[in-house]
Formats: sequence, structure tokens, C-alpha cells
Amino acid sequence: MDEVRIIEVKQSVLADNDKDADALRKKMKDDKTFLINLMAGPGAGKTTTLVRVINMMKQKYKIGVLEADIDSDVDAVTIAGATGVDAVQLHTGGMCHLDAEMTRQGVNELEKEYGHHDIVILENVGNLVCPAEFDTGAAMNMMILSVPEGDDKPLKYPLMFQVCNLAVINKTDVMPYFDFDMEKCREGIARRNPNAAVIPISAKTGDGIDELVEYLNCKVEEWRK
Amino acid sequence: MDEVRIIEVKQSVLADNDKDADALRKKMKDDKTFLINLMAGPGAGKTTTLVRVINMMKQKYKIGVLEADIDSDVDAVTIAGATGVDAVQLHTGGMCHLDAEMTRQGVNELEKEYGHHDIVILENVGNLVCPAEFDTGAAMNMMILSVPEGDDKPLKYPLMFQVCNLAVINKTDVMPYFDFDMEKCREGIARRNPNAAVIPISAKTGDGIDELVEYLNCKVEEWRK
Repeated sequence: MDEVRIIEVKQSVLADNDKDADALRKKMKDDKTFLINLMAGPGAGKTTTLVRVINMMKQKYKIGVLEADIDSDVDAVTIAGATGVDAVQLHTGGMCHLDAEMTRQGVNELEKEYGHHDIVILENVGNLVCPAEFDTGAAMNMMILSVPEGDDKPLKYPLMFQVCNLAVINKTDVMPYFDFDMEKCREGIARRNPNAAVIPISAKTGDGIDELVEYLNCKVEEWRK
Repeated sequence: MDEVRIIEVKQSVLADNDKDADALRKKMKDDKTFLINLMAGPGAGKTTTLVRVINMMKQKYKIGVLEADIDSDVDAVTIAGATGVDAVQLHTGGMCHLDAEMTRQGVNELEKEYGHHDIVILENVGNLVCPAEFDTGAAMNMMILSVPEGDDKPLKYPLMFQVCNLAVINKTDVMPYFDFDMEKCREGIARRNPNAAVIPISAKTGDGIDELVEYLNCKVEEWRK
């Protein structure tokens, strides 16, 4: 598959993003759709992780993916090609994040094009700063930190770790080649957010993916109850 | 050294960042100070690269460093401790980038505290999106992309590559463990900006640092003529 639907999303003209987010969250709850907001810095492995997770969950759930990017459509093409699930590319027109209104436009497009989904995953713009500032209306904030980025990131990007429900530590397969202290990283995350779950994985080898899928399954079931 | 000066910089109240940037650039030119704006995503190796470069250039030039961060002061402490040069930490108060006015505040503080510098290096907030949108008044934009982030980043963060004069490709020592195609990366950068210089390095092993320092030396001399 090398063609995906691309839509240009527009920022809300209303200033009240929190209100928009709550409205979208309520709609998703009523629809029994679990919306995941996936955030990470550039190259942390969001797309590769999604491919792994979706391929393990797609038998049980109908999954749709919203791929936010400033310009290209490589991620939506990758997701659609590697998993076969419904994917829409959102172009942010230079914006460094998605707000709730932009997310709503993506959700509507996905629904209009492909019907109801049990899970919608929003892959946010690769950025550890701005996406953390905007509630997208998701049921869950998931972030990925990769080993090569370093164990000090919770110190330097406090808000991202404060707002995430789950921090996935990716690229554990290259731990031997980097000075990355998993314990120090866990402590840093806990200092920002004692309630955040932390799951180390390697999206490349598949290590830890079972645990991640199990965690997500529980969250989806909880939401749909 | 574990104490550095921390200042809280404030965004310009004027909307005309380009004008502020031109004014700062003119001042730096008059002062014969070469201002480098260093940008990268989180964990690409900005600080480690700076330590290498500064230790090779500090005999010839008086160097000052402005470390921008949202919250912590770990980078300024690292730079000051590992190189002995003057370093000031700038806190952006949650802002995802520096504008020319914030840079000017940092430059003034550095000058007030430590006098004239031949080179001032501004380590921008770790972010491949927003910093690219704001001219800081620097003589040169340098960006670092690291091998683990992937060779597709020029496609996905077009503006960053359009505005950079120099793209450093860091962490070449881990090339064997990642699917990173250097040729594809160079082509991607050239498509965004045919005039950008590209220098592969490993800040960890020191590989390529000689070439990087030689390039920077030439740029500094050119500026001060």
C-alpha cells in the first residue's frame, strides 16, 4: 500500500482546549473507543512499536491510526503497509503538536472513512516538549523514551513525564552500547510522576512487547466497561 | 563545579523576531563574536559534542556557552565541569525554543559576568520542530542528527534541515546496530537544503571531530574578518 488519506488539520479557533478535550473524551467513552495519545522525541521508535503492538492486538480489536506529521506521509504508509489497519495521515501545517480540535478532525475522518474502531492510536508529532502541553482528549497518554536518548530525559522534559500514564523505554537491545542506567531512569520518571507505569521493550527484537500488549489490553477493557 | 548561573529568560513582547535577530547579529559582528545556534532532538548528543569541540578550540578562542533548558541545569554544569569555559543556564519557563530576545538576554548575562567571548554557543532546547522557526540572531545554525534517530528525519522535520548551515551526524560508532543509510540521509538533507554541510562524527569515540573543528575554525575566522 503506498497511498493513504492525508488531511490538513487546523488548530482550534477557541482558546479552551481543555473543554474540547473533555468533550472528545466523553464522545470516545460513549462510543467505547479507546484513544491513545502516543508521544516521543524524534526517532524514539513510535512507528516501529506501533507496528508490533497492532499486529498483536488487531485480531481482538478493530484499530485505527492517526499519524501526525508536519509534512511527510511515511508513517501512515508504513503503518498501513505493515499492519493492514486503517491509517490516516494528519498534516499539522508546521504545528509542533496536536490539540483536541485537531485530534477530533482526525477521529471524524477515520470514522467517516472506515466506521467504528475499538482503539484509535494518535501518533503525535515527534517532540518531547509541546505535545505534553495539550490535552488531546485521549483516554491515555503513552510516551516512548529510547535508550540512545539517555536516562536524564525525565529531568529535562518534566511535563512530558508528568502527563504520561505509561512510559515505554525502547531500544533495550542496544543497552550495551550506551551509558543508560535503567534504575536512574525509573527514579527520574517516578520523581515526575509516581503513578506512571514503566515498561522496557525492544521494538526491534520484540522483547517486552508481550508485557506492553497485556498492559494495553487491560486499559482498553477497563475503558469499555 | 556544581554551581552555574541560572537565568529565567523571557520571550520578546515585540512580534518582530526577525528584526531582533538582525540587531543581535549586527552587535555580535561588531563585537567579533561568533554565535552558534546548536539545535537537535532530545538525546542526539549536543552536550557531548560541545565538550569535544570546546576542548579542542578553547586554547585558541575564549568560548562561552548558553545552555537552554526548560527546567534543569545539568547541561551547564556538565559543560562547565568538563571544559572549564564560561557557561550560563537559560531557563525558558516551559517554552519549546529560544527567540532572538531570549538569546540576547543570555548573551548579555554571559558578557556581564565573564566579559568578551570570541565564540558563544547557544545550546537550544532539544526539539527538531520549534527552534527551527525562530531566528536567534546566530551567525550559524548547526544541527545534530544522531544515527539512532533514523535516516528519514530530513523528510519529517523539513524546516530544521532547511535552516541549518551544518548538519552533524552523530553516534556513527553505533551504525552497525541500526538501519541507518548515510547516503540516503545525505540525499534527504540535500533535498531540503543543497548548501548544508554534512559532517559525520562520533562524539563518544572522537571520530570526525577534527573535521568538525576545522570547519568551525574556518567559519569563525571568516566571521571575524
